[in-house]
Amino acid sequence: MGSLSFKLIKKDGKARRGEITTKHGTIQTPVFMPVGTAATVKAMKPEAVANLGAEIILGNTYHLFLRPGSKIVKQAGGLHKFMNWSRPILTDSGGFQVFSLGDLRKITEEGVQFASFIDGSRHMLGPESSIEVQQDLGSDIMMAFDECAPYPADREYVKPSMERTTRWLARCKDAWTNREEQALFGIMQGGMYQDLREKSARDIVDMDLPGYAIGGLSVGEPKELMCSVLDYCVDYLPENKPRYLMGVGTPDYLFEGVARGVDMFDCVLPTRIARHGVAMTSHGNLNIKNAKFERDFEPLDPECNCYVCRNYSRAYLRHLFKSGEMLSSMLLSEHNLHFLVSTMANIRRSIEEDRFEQYKEDFYRKYGYLEK
Amino acid sequence: MGSLSFKLIKKDGKARRGEITTKHGTIQTPVFMPVGTAATVKAMKPEAVANLGAEIILGNTYHLFLRPGSKIVKQAGGLHKFMNWSRPILTDSGGFQVFSLGDLRKITEEGVQFASFIDGSRHMLGPESSIEVQQDLGSDIMMAFDECAPYPADREYVKPSMERTTRWLARCKDAWTNREEQALFGIMQGGMYQDLREKSARDIVDMDLPGYAIGGLSVGEPKELMCSVLDYCVDYLPENKPRYLMGVGTPDYLFEGVARGVDMFDCVLPTRIARHGVAMTSHGNLNIKNAKFERDFEPLDPECNCYVCRNYSRAYLRHLFKSGEMLSSMLLSEHNLHFLVSTMANIRRSIEEDRFEQYKEDFYRKYGYLEK
Repeated sequence: MGSLSFKLIKKDGKARRGEITTKHGTIQTPVFMPVGTAATVKAMKPEAVANLGAEIILGNTYHLFLRPGSKIVKQAGGLHKFMNWSRPILTDSGGFQVFSLGDLRKITEEGVQFASFIDGSRHMLGPESSIEVQQDLGSDIMMAFDECAPYPADREYVKPSMERTTRWLARCKDAWTNREEQALFGIMQGGMYQDLREKSARDIVDMDLPGYAIGGLSVGEPKELMCSVLDYCVDYLPENKPRYLMGVGTPDYLFEGVARGVDMFDCVLPTRIARHGVAMTSHGNLNIKNAKFERDFEPLDPECNCYVCRNYSRAYLRHLFKSGEMLSSMLLSEHNLHFLVSTMANIRRSIEEDRFEQYKEDFYRKYGYLEK
Repeated sequence: MGSLSFKLIKKDGKARRGEITTKHGTIQTPVFMPVGTAATVKAMKPEAVANLGAEIILGNTYHLFLRPGSKIVKQAGGLHKFMNWSRPILTDSGGFQVFSLGDLRKITEEGVQFASFIDGSRHMLGPESSIEVQQDLGSDIMMAFDECAPYPADREYVKPSMERTTRWLARCKDAWTNREEQALFGIMQGGMYQDLREKSARDIVDMDLPGYAIGGLSVGEPKELMCSVLDYCVDYLPENKPRYLMGVGTPDYLFEGVARGVDMFDCVLPTRIARHGVAMTSHGNLNIKNAKFERDFEPLDPECNCYVCRNYSRAYLRHLFKSGEMLSSMLLSEHNLHFLVSTMANIRRSIEEDRFEQYKEDFYRKYGYLEK
């Protein structure tokens, strides 16, 4: 498993300060990973993503499998070269997307048959094909092909689904041939059932993979439930491997995850709300469409030192949004990613200095979480 | 007229190599000016526009008057600060847009009444209000409020229209109070009628303004007619003032304009076709949607050294366009503007080295104009 190494540098309570090293570079953890679904972080040049401090981004296997097709990306020299991003990339397995298709997909032990969102054509993704696609893409971290059970789901659904995910992980591991270049992470499932989570964790940890993800959380369950499930999930995972909480991106979920020992996070939220005119700031979210910003010449966040806040006013950003200008999405996406990436840098510093809980409380108070 | 100076450096035939100095910097001519209609060059950060070599951009008075409103821009510290662009800006007068509204506008001697494209509200623009708006915006070069007569238009329409444009110019000059900071250019009209063009030129040149534009060309007339009208128009203008051919942007029109002694050009074409997936290259236009580029890993233009051609393949750009990703518009806009701006730099060098005609012929052959 020469493709990835993890060094645990420091702990502050359960919060961990670590470092992941891959063939394309080193990642300081805890880390927030911007999502670049279709081989682009939406509305941003890769240099802007790197300049705001992102050390790793995500690519989506499902989307790239359907368009442009993984063989084209492979022929281009891999996803890094195709999209002009030289730092690490993590690819998901496509499982989450194909399972989300509802009536448009059919699950068998072999994998999932589904219809393309582009032209309705029939396709199949399973453990072997997902790994094949991810090896074509050449990501630094590949994710196992799994089923993320919906919420709510009863035990009768979750148990066989979790067991199949474990069987699929064994097949993913067998299909994983490029072991010196690419790492494979297993995914724990088990819904909101502690014994199923424990069973899932035990079985996947037995496979001795470079890292582990916690799947099936932040899928609609109340925050308190998410936190209590996460509490025991993390304890089932080994200390010497990175832990990834999939699809989590609101600031409070990042803090709650870090507090419980999670190292990696990703979410489309910051770039998606940016395209709808919402900025994340240290004092909470700001809706740039609001008429009160018409003559507001302050930056989005007066405490932020990002490119956007150094150069543009709320009045200008509101004007761009109202005018339907792409620059609105470009600038708000950059600001929001900077906000989460730099918040994560602050979190890392706070762990190094044994004051994570204090920083979390200060952040929550300012952001407005404590008032809710 | 301390707001602008023009230095004629060199001539090669009628082609001129010059330099315009404004309060926000110096512009090497002949120059192509990217258009930033609504206080943004669409899909580009201002740094990217500057980095590709653009020394001046355009703003549109009509659009900024309606949204966000010139008083807001003024309160922001002017258009340069509002949009984060520190180099020179030229603003048009809004005349072209309000006259284009057809039944939605009413022309009187005072000015033009029109309906807003945003909410249908009634507004008025005339010589005084156009200059007031442009002084609020704080552009380096303001354009006179004129009527650009349509093509075709008979003499009975064009003559009184041209005479009114001249009367309006006198009123623009009277309204122009910020003379140490902002320059005012007059606009020659007269349709395709030589005597009217001569009369227009004589009257506007009498007003001794910092520069002159040729309006009412490239409005649908055949290229040969445009060229023959341009032939005599330029001769009516003084040698010691910059000459601006408004709204012209295909490469051949730039060359034909320079060949006849024009110094300044602008057009939305490069950024507009970019958003439709068309790239300008040294071998002619390239439609990135074409299926033949699916596995084409060459840059858009192998002879181009722009950021886009150094870092991305046709296959990637096609993928972005097909996926509806904003990065497609961002990258193609940057490439196309680089193409015209760097072609203009090549034109300047060719004039300096007395080989403009040869460069023009070489460019035309390669671009494919000579085959048509």
